[in-house]
Amino acid sequence: MLLKSLYFLRSLSLPIFVYGSRNVIEFYSELLNLPCDLPIVKGARRGAPPGIYLINVTDNVPFKPGEVGKDSGKAQILYIEKAIEDAKRGEIKAIVTLPINKESAKLGGFPFPGHTEFLAHAFGVKEYAMMLANEKLKVVLQTTHVALKEVPSLITEEKILSKLRLIDKSLKKPRIAVAGLNPHAGENGLFGDEELKIIRPAIEKAKKEGINVAGPLPADTVFVRALKGEFEVVLCMYHDQGLIPIKLLGFGNSVNVTLGLPVVRTSVDHGTAYDIAGKGIASPESFKTAVKMAIELLTR
Amino acid sequence: MLLKSLYFLRSLSLPIFVYGSRNVIEFYSELLNLPCDLPIVKGARRGAPPGIYLINVTDNVPFKPGEVGKDSGKAQILYIEKAIEDAKRGEIKAIVTLPINKESAKLGGFPFPGHTEFLAHAFGVKEYAMMLANEKLKVVLQTTHVALKEVPSLITEEKILSKLRLIDKSLKKPRIAVAGLNPHAGENGLFGDEELKIIRPAIEKAKKEGINVAGPLPADTVFVRALKGEFEVVLCMYHDQGLIPIKLLGFGNSVNVTLGLPVVRTSVDHGTAYDIAGKGIASPESFKTAVKMAIELLTR
Repeated sequence: MLLKSLYFLRSLSLPIFVYGSRNVIEFYSELLNLPCDLPIVKGARRGAPPGIYLINVTDNVPFKPGEVGKDSGKAQILYIEKAIEDAKRGEIKAIVTLPINKESAKLGGFPFPGHTEFLAHAFGVKEYAMMLANEKLKVVLQTTHVALKEVPSLITEEKILSKLRLIDKSLKKPRIAVAGLNPHAGENGLFGDEELKIIRPAIEKAKKEGINVAGPLPADTVFVRALKGEFEVVLCMYHDQGLIPIKLLGFGNSVNVTLGLPVVRTSVDHGTAYDIAGKGIASPESFKTAVKMAIELLTR
Repeated sequence: MLLKSLYFLRSLSLPIFVYGSRNVIEFYSELLNLPCDLPIVKGARRGAPPGIYLINVTDNVPFKPGEVGKDSGKAQILYIEKAIEDAKRGEIKAIVTLPINKESAKLGGFPFPGHTEFLAHAFGVKEYAMMLANEKLKVVLQTTHVALKEVPSLITEEKILSKLRLIDKSLKKPRIAVAGLNPHAGENGLFGDEELKIIRPAIEKAKKEGINVAGPLPADTVFVRALKGEFEVVLCMYHDQGLIPIKLLGFGNSVNVTLGLPVVRTSVDHGTAYDIAGKGIASPESFKTAVKMAIELLTR
């Protein structure tokens, strides 16, 4: 994906640092016949001239294309650790991550479910949120990977208010809609009272803090209204409420954004796809969208 | 909507019976300057020549455009009762309903939440299902207007199997997908076990009965797969799971279908919109789609 995106990355006229291993990049460059001659630097530097630089975090990594391995797992961790180090020193303002192979990373000693949790830990951040975005829609998830029956008990006024503050700050005062938990947003308490007892009070408090937020709105029409431009981002109560519209509208072109970190962080929305590694058929579209989204968030 | 759709209805070359009141139709015909000179017949007759016939169920109904009223409420009930009578005698094979005003109907003595429940009652049907459809997607709801926290306890193996049989019979052996209840369809029990304990066993039993069904599939990708043609209809576990994709894809052009009745029944997916009654601005698109869907279901 990186090799296929070099032309696009150059066109941005920004200093871009690739955290990786020279031997891995050279291997794929030859295999796929995609030339890649990046200048090697020791670390990222704020104010560097536009261009794509390689930070050769660890060289001569033993690996086999598309195979899970301890060494490649370790390397993946070193890349992200080095990027975090540069971010902490203020040399980079945004991190775009390619997928890690969770199995390899685990073999390499990585104790986190994914990049997101590791980044939050490394930056010492407790309040963070997962945002999914494509060119048409942005959604933030109030709850993520939990059983649907757990969702109602996980939704509290305080937690919703906290997510609203995070969205307001990260996206610089966007127009936010909050989706209801129940059909028709509860129809005034007829089908569930979470809207009246929890969600509405949280929204009222957020409004008093100057946050531009509407809701709770029926989930079956809130996305249509957002698409028409009424809202910039929808806070969703559970995973599928946000993911159904994102995947329907995104056509494999969505990105994952972590809100709440001291740097902008975006990521592709797919896995490592080891089954097609080195075949030259991976689509770089999600990666390009992740880069564009990082720039959008930086310049907002 | 009816008056704006006459040209379309005539183009179908079918015998079509309008259950209504002459004085109401004449009033709107003059108000909107939309000519409407329908031959009046006493009741529907199977094998009648193609054309649009008016069954003047009750004449001289007192009413005011856009106002809730007992008399118009009573008339609305008489129309549907007469259609049911004709359907029971085998004279009509499909009923397309325009919205009823629930407030007027209640004043007129109608004890049901809507047409659907009344039709099920009148035909003595206990197993029926609500299907929402547009030209791109069909979804059937396993549960409808209940609080989200009630959903997991309402989902049983027997109820899912019953809905699958109904879909299989009504749509004449379609390719069905069943959406999971939990994110990633539970990820093998990691986020909820309803897929393993309830949904999967129901699907296995349905398969043994020869029903063409796949699942449980993650809700965030099942609609994308259905759109690509892999499935014709998706059985959804709760209201918003089905309504979010339908409304996103339908753009106000979806229809409501009742499965399980001895006749085909489709309906517009909007209300009476009394606020714009008589203004000539109502869009007939949902009504036309409801008529087209009825024909599709009849000829399947």
